[in-house]
Amino acid sequence: MEEASLKKTVRKTGESPGTLTYVGRSKLKDVLLTFTEYGEESLLTKTWKTRKDFIRFNQRTEHAPISWLNVDGVHKPEVVASVGNTFHLHPLLQEDVVDTEQKPKIDYYDDTIFVVMKMAQFNREKSRLYFEHVSMVLGPGYVLSFQEERDVDIFEPIRTRLQNASGQLRRSGPDFLFYALIDTIVDHYFAVLEQLGDRIEQLELNIIEETDEKATHELYSLKREMILLRRSVWPVREILSKLQRGSNTLLTPELQPFLRDVYDHTIQIIETIETYRDILSGLLDVYLSITSNRMNQIMKVLTIISTIFIPLTFIAGIYGMNFDHMPELHERWAYPAVWGVMIAISVALLIFFQKKRWL
Amino acid sequence: MEEASLKKTVRKTGESPGTLTYVGRSKLKDVLLTFTEYGEESLLTKTWKTRKDFIRFNQRTEHAPISWLNVDGVHKPEVVASVGNTFHLHPLLQEDVVDTEQKPKIDYYDDTIFVVMKMAQFNREKSRLYFEHVSMVLGPGYVLSFQEERDVDIFEPIRTRLQNASGQLRRSGPDFLFYALIDTIVDHYFAVLEQLGDRIEQLELNIIEETDEKATHELYSLKREMILLRRSVWPVREILSKLQRGSNTLLTPELQPFLRDVYDHTIQIIETIETYRDILSGLLDVYLSITSNRMNQIMKVLTIISTIFIPLTFIAGIYGMNFDHMPELHERWAYPAVWGVMIAISVALLIFFQKKRWL
Amino acid sequence: MEEASLKKTVRKTGESPGTLTYVGRSKLKDVLLTFTEYGEESLLTKTWKTRKDFIRFNQRTEHAPISWLNVDGVHKPEVVASVGNTFHLHPLLQEDVVDTEQKPKIDYYDDTIFVVMKMAQFNREKSRLYFEHVSMVLGPGYVLSFQEERDVDIFEPIRTRLQNASGQLRRSGPDFLFYALIDTIVDHYFAVLEQLGDRIEQLELNIIEETDEKATHELYSLKREMILLRRSVWPVREILSKLQRGSNTLLTPELQPFLRDVYDHTIQIIETIETYRDILSGLLDVYLSITSNRMNQIMKVLTIISTIFIPLTFIAGIYGMNFDHMPELHERWAYPAVWGVMIAISVALLIFFQKKRWL
Amino acid sequence: MEEASLKKTVRKTGESPGTLTYVGRSKLKDVLLTFTEYGEESLLTKTWKTRKDFIRFNQRTEHAPISWLNVDGVHKPEVVASVGNTFHLHPLLQEDVVDTEQKPKIDYYDDTIFVVMKMAQFNREKSRLYFEHVSMVLGPGYVLSFQEERDVDIFEPIRTRLQNASGQLRRSGPDFLFYALIDTIVDHYFAVLEQLGDRIEQLELNIIEETDEKATHELYSLKREMILLRRSVWPVREILSKLQRGSNTLLTPELQPFLRDVYDHTIQIIETIETYRDILSGLLDVYLSITSNRMNQIMKVLTIISTIFIPLTFIAGIYGMNFDHMPELHERWAYPAVWGVMIAISVALLIFFQKKRWL
Amino acid sequence: MEEASLKKTVRKTGESPGTLTYVGRSKLKDVLLTFTEYGEESLLTKTWKTRKDFIRFNQRTEHAPISWLNVDGVHKPEVVASVGNTFHLHPLLQEDVVDTEQKPKIDYYDDTIFVVMKMAQFNREKSRLYFEHVSMVLGPGYVLSFQEERDVDIFEPIRTRLQNASGQLRRSGPDFLFYALIDTIVDHYFAVLEQLGDRIEQLELNIIEETDEKATHELYSLKREMILLRRSVWPVREILSKLQRGSNTLLTPELQPFLRDVYDHTIQIIETIETYRDILSGLLDVYLSITSNRMNQIMKVLTIISTIFIPLTFIAGIYGMNFDHMPELHERWAYPAVWGVMIAISVALLIFFQKKRWL
Repeated sequence: MEEASLKKTVRKTGESPGTLTYVGRSKLKDVLLTFTEYGEESLLTKTWKTRKDFIRFNQRTEHAPISWLNVDGVHKPEVVASVGNTFHLHPLLQEDVVDTEQKPKIDYYDDTIFVVMKMAQFNREKSRLYFEHVSMVLGPGYVLSFQEERDVDIFEPIRTRLQNASGQLRRSGPDFLFYALIDTIVDHYFAVLEQLGDRIEQLELNIIEETDEKATHELYSLKREMILLRRSVWPVREILSKLQRGSNTLLTPELQPFLRDVYDHTIQIIETIETYRDILSGLLDVYLSITSNRMNQIMKVLTIISTIFIPLTFIAGIYGMNFDHMPELHERWAYPAVWGVMIAISVALLIFFQKKRWL
Repeated sequence: MEEASLKKTVRKTGESPGTLTYVGRSKLKDVLLTFTEYGEESLLTKTWKTRKDFIRFNQRTEHAPISWLNVDGVHKPEVVASVGNTFHLHPLLQEDVVDTEQKPKIDYYDDTIFVVMKMAQFNREKSRLYFEHVSMVLGPGYVLSFQEERDVDIFEPIRTRLQNASGQLRRSGPDFLFYALIDTIVDHYFAVLEQLGDRIEQLELNIIEETDEKATHELYSLKREMILLRRSVWPVREILSKLQRGSNTLLTPELQPFLRDVYDHTIQIIETIETYRDILSGLLDVYLSITSNRMNQIMKVLTIISTIFIPLTFIAGIYGMNFDHMPELHERWAYPAVWGVMIAISVALLIFFQKKRWL
Repeated sequence: MEEASLKKTVRKTGESPGTLTYVGRSKLKDVLLTFTEYGEESLLTKTWKTRKDFIRFNQRTEHAPISWLNVDGVHKPEVVASVGNTFHLHPLLQEDVVDTEQKPKIDYYDDTIFVVMKMAQFNREKSRLYFEHVSMVLGPGYVLSFQEERDVDIFEPIRTRLQNASGQLRRSGPDFLFYALIDTIVDHYFAVLEQLGDRIEQLELNIIEETDEKATHELYSLKREMILLRRSVWPVREILSKLQRGSNTLLTPELQPFLRDVYDHTIQIIETIETYRDILSGLLDVYLSITSNRMNQIMKVLTIISTIFIPLTFIAGIYGMNFDHMPELHERWAYPAVWGVMIAISVALLIFFQKKRWL
Repeated sequence: MEEASLKKTVRKTGESPGTLTYVGRSKLKDVLLTFTEYGEESLLTKTWKTRKDFIRFNQRTEHAPISWLNVDGVHKPEVVASVGNTFHLHPLLQEDVVDTEQKPKIDYYDDTIFVVMKMAQFNREKSRLYFEHVSMVLGPGYVLSFQEERDVDIFEPIRTRLQNASGQLRRSGPDFLFYALIDTIVDHYFAVLEQLGDRIEQLELNIIEETDEKATHELYSLKREMILLRRSVWPVREILSKLQRGSNTLLTPELQPFLRDVYDHTIQIIETIETYRDILSGLLDVYLSITSNRMNQIMKVLTIISTIFIPLTFIAGIYGMNFDHMPELHERWAYPAVWGVMIAISVALLIFFQKKRWL
Repeated sequence: MEEASLKKTVRKTGESPGTLTYVGRSKLKDVLLTFTEYGEESLLTKTWKTRKDFIRFNQRTEHAPISWLNVDGVHKPEVVASVGNTFHLHPLLQEDVVDTEQKPKIDYYDDTIFVVMKMAQFNREKSRLYFEHVSMVLGPGYVLSFQEERDVDIFEPIRTRLQNASGQLRRSGPDFLFYALIDTIVDHYFAVLEQLGDRIEQLELNIIEETDEKATHELYSLKREMILLRRSVWPVREILSKLQRGSNTLLTPELQPFLRDVYDHTIQIIETIETYRDILSGLLDVYLSITSNRMNQIMKVLTIISTIFIPLTFIAGIYGMNFDHMPELHERWAYPAVWGVMIAISVALLIFFQKKRWL
């Protein structure tokens, strides 16, 4: 899974399109291939760890009613190429599976539907979003899914649901499995949004109670994550809208309400992101006006103290002068009189401040 | 009814869609089912408090011309499921009835129209918006309505209007009742807007008269509520637009002008919200420029006082020095001369400030 | 006429739609009905002050070629209802005539076209906009117009033009009269815009010459009025666009260029409002940067004076100390030397400020 | 030519549409009519200065292959009316020729195409835009052009090109002349944009080098002119788009690539304006942050000097007190000790400032 | 290659369209013509340096299956004209080849497709974008490409790929070469974006760690480059969308997925630019709030020091006065008492600051 970063948009300029180059961080882990064959009555799961194994598996796929091949780890282009060639996937499709910088999109090829999505995860400690590049292919009788990393298997709940022989997943075709994969990814965004919402509510309290520089960084980083999140969800809306509208033999009409449902969820996610962005903008305004308000208060204190004591100190300075001829110095009433003048000045200034509402 | 909060967008990732889980705050109150049967000549109302009663009612619904079943409290999924199964509602529809985080939307099912809306209420003391999740189903000959809580019965005025045997409600079909329910919810937004408008006008006065930190919080909280309000009204526009355009046998042509009317109201509400947001942005600008203006005034006072007295105090300091050989100290005219210099400096500075328009 | 206020959006929640309730400020004045019958050769004008008279007039309307009934003052719902029933107007139409909060809109009913508009007026002394709710109905052979108040008769110029037997108004059908009424209201916006433009140009000068807190209030209030103005003009564009596109037997093809003309005017008004808003935003930026610039200047003066004199005062303080053993005090050259050091410090600081471009 | 001002949007409310009233500044200059007749083989130019002459010319227009009548100065409505009646122009078209506040637009009349545009010119000394109202009519075999003032003849280059007998202008129909007039006006915007671009680049340098109040005014005035410029160019886009799409017998298919070309230029102008506006917004941000940065620096200097010397001056003050019993005063080591303390305090504070990165 | 500048939008007003004038910076270098003829089996490359040579080449083009003529350096209009006439290019097309200010666009001529694009390059040292004007023509059996400068040959990778006899480039028609040229330019944007992303991440760190004036300039300059970049990429989207939709005999159906691929890349580039702009806006907000926060801290230090010592200095001043009758001066306990009062004041003020959270 990759930390949401700005600069990993590199592409190899001038290279022939369709060349498979892994763009993400190079990883040393093995590829894990999970193959599931299921129908209303049967369920069979196998896993391979190396490419060699996979080649053997190639000779066996034909007989199962619905096949689902999940490829965990796309950092070995040769494995992707090998799967791709088995299922006759277009070179550009294979390129998009490996290009972890590819934004979410849907492509219709002759007999397959290809969807790229981003799986979002929020790391609370680092306060950072991580995205995982997930590609899915729906073909006649089979579904392929490619995940970037295999630490977390995001499709585990679907495997669990497949155990349930009477579940809709077992009774429906590959298009329903395809939908279930998309739905799982979309649902993950809700979890991320909830965590971000938590952070925003915390930040709200922090900013109103005590305004320090950390709040600014938190605000900025939340805004930034929101921008990156929106960028990964926004195209999903179009993917689902195209899936709904497009009349394709791969998609059964019974799937329509489910596609509409996940489409609605996407809209809800997008609107929540927009709402959060608006609220974060509002928070920035609050922050700035609280800061400038505090500055005002600090300045008031400084001004009140300075304005009162500076003239008084001046008067004291006058009578500290060592001139030989200062008649006031020798009068009995002079010292109390000076005190009187000083108090009068202080009171006058305090009344002035009162009028200005500075006290 | 729920306080408008940011973080309640949780969904159970990976769960099979169509599973009924109540997402709102769990409540201990009983469910209240209100059943109304009416025609041009008859009107019959019954209420049940438990699910058992409701099952008995199931055997009786067939004969009435128009049936309206209002379910108060959706926190018991089993009741919703029981009603849903009686009327053969789609599992996704039932899920949306229970999911209080579902945004407003319209769905067409085979023989029913399903509308989700949010009932808004403004708590003046807490200065917070509350939203209630309301779902409505229009089927052949019946209307179902689901409310989140039953403290306030928002559909009471409609029951009162049903008493009037010659009213349009009694003379029309279930689609008119369906419209009347939607219209009631839309009209509630006007009341909320009026209260928010009141707050904004009060805030306008507060900000211009005395600018304290509280105004910032009020501004922010009004902006925030406005964002949440817009989010709940915006989809209503599309719901009504779809109801108007969609040619559906459930909706009679006579309903058209009424749908247009409630659509116009929605537009008016949305525009008022936008207007309020613009005005609140303007208020923030006023607040910030008033704050910076006051800072300027404070600084002017400090600068004037400091700038006049600091040089004078310096002069006094000079002649307070204890050097043995300071010839000026022994001159008769020295003391008055120093006073003269001091007054000259003050006058010069005052003229300088006058020119700078600081006085 | 009503002052543009934020909070008058109240609606009677849950009431049966089509109920006539006057929402504006209740007025004690009488209703004034002005009835005009005209054709190419004849022109007849009558006025009634009470409802009783109006009922008598009902029996006479049939024979005139073109009838125009102007109802001044919509605060008596029973009069509107009585007119409405005579001309068989839809209950929702009647409701919109009386509801002074209804935003501008166009509705097509079976044999009538109904237009709601807002007549704008600018009160220079209060610097506030006032809107008057005006409704117009075009039916076969007749035009009805409803105004909110009768102090100012905005349609007077049209009556004057009707005197001219050879004018286009007399030679054309009721649709041309309908257009002339709309055109009059749209033209009024130009006058309001001119007055607002005057204010903005004045404000430009004020802000650049002397920046005080009043300018902020003026800026805010102009922005606010602009928002309210836009809100009342924006829907007019759609009204006219619908009138142009809609092929309706009530509208003759000869009217097309005139409708296009008034549509162009509306666009021009909207664009001017947007331009004014942009300019006001620019002015706010100028205001804020001028304010912060002035602050800078004030701070510079304070800093220069303080920075020069504080060290000098410290030196004077040193030699004002009363220690028994301060050898410098007894040297002849000490006093002039101290003066020398002080002047050197001042010059050094002045050079420093010069380099910093603070002088 | 008129200075771009805000308030000249006056219209005569309630007047009959089609009345010719000159809205611009009344001018005393004569009207100048320039009549050009040309074909592939012939070219004939005549000018009249008074209306009487023009009437004589009316009897002569029929025989020339292509006629171009240019009316310089539209401040005499009677001349426009006279030309208008000769060519049977619609009264609303004539009104728009005279109304110098009319925004750019295109109107199709039965056998003519009518285009209104604004000719932009930039006065470098005043740093202000000037707009000239130009109207053009394309009819069967003739082109009419109306300019507001005749000091500068903007169409002179076209007359020069007409001299070239083998030029495309001479070989094409009146639609090509019509296009050439529009193209000339659009090209003028490029010149204006170049001058504005120059100003912006200058302003960039000024703001980064020395930030004074003048830069704010310049920024504001450039923003303002940009708003006015955009307002005059924006509708041109639609004019040209309509000309391209509309299939009209007046426009030959050969003109299409040329219309597309001038349309592209308009898009380019609009985008440049938007780019300039974005850059100006960026400049304002730079300006504000530079200002606040400088304030910070000023405050730092003040704070460092004050914070160091205020405590020192206090210590000096202590030992300047005249109490009879101050044992320290009589110690030999006291004076150097005080100096030691003072230096220690200064050094401690300097280290503190160093840590805070204020030095 | 040209530095991205604001003011080079000059056009020669009133000139006949179709006149070839080079608008870019005049260059003294020679033109370089590279001619490539290739088919599945053959590949032939020739270069000419002068126009004379080119004329000789004209007599040879007919026999090769696919011809690609690359013209490096468009500053010699006569060469462009000579190529243009050989291939019968429309005069407006030739004008756009030479006009380096022409924005990206696509034009369909009778038997050619003409595309203008901007090649972006980022100079890290100057932190500036450079754009190169590139035009491409696809005709039956040939492709023409025109580059502004010949220091860097951006199409070199394509020549390398042409060496590979089994590559798709060699096996496909001229439309694939045309696509490959476009793809190369679009891919270059990714490299530029990566460098800009680097700069932004660096800036993020800089701003959060130490906020100096340079960061503002960097921020502004990145924003500016982003605006210019967007302006050059935005129209590319439309070019590719038109290429995809337009059914043209020059484009084979096999090209469709490749066009879709490069279209997706363009979308991705545009979205990255928008994301960067949003992030830069966020950074500016951080910068401003950090600045104002630092100001607050500076003011706090000044206020604390001043507020504590100013009253103390005043007290010291009081007892430095030289009045004859100041009874306190002669008391034994007076000096320690004054110290006590001073310490009490300091402690009280420190507690006050503690409460205000300034410490």
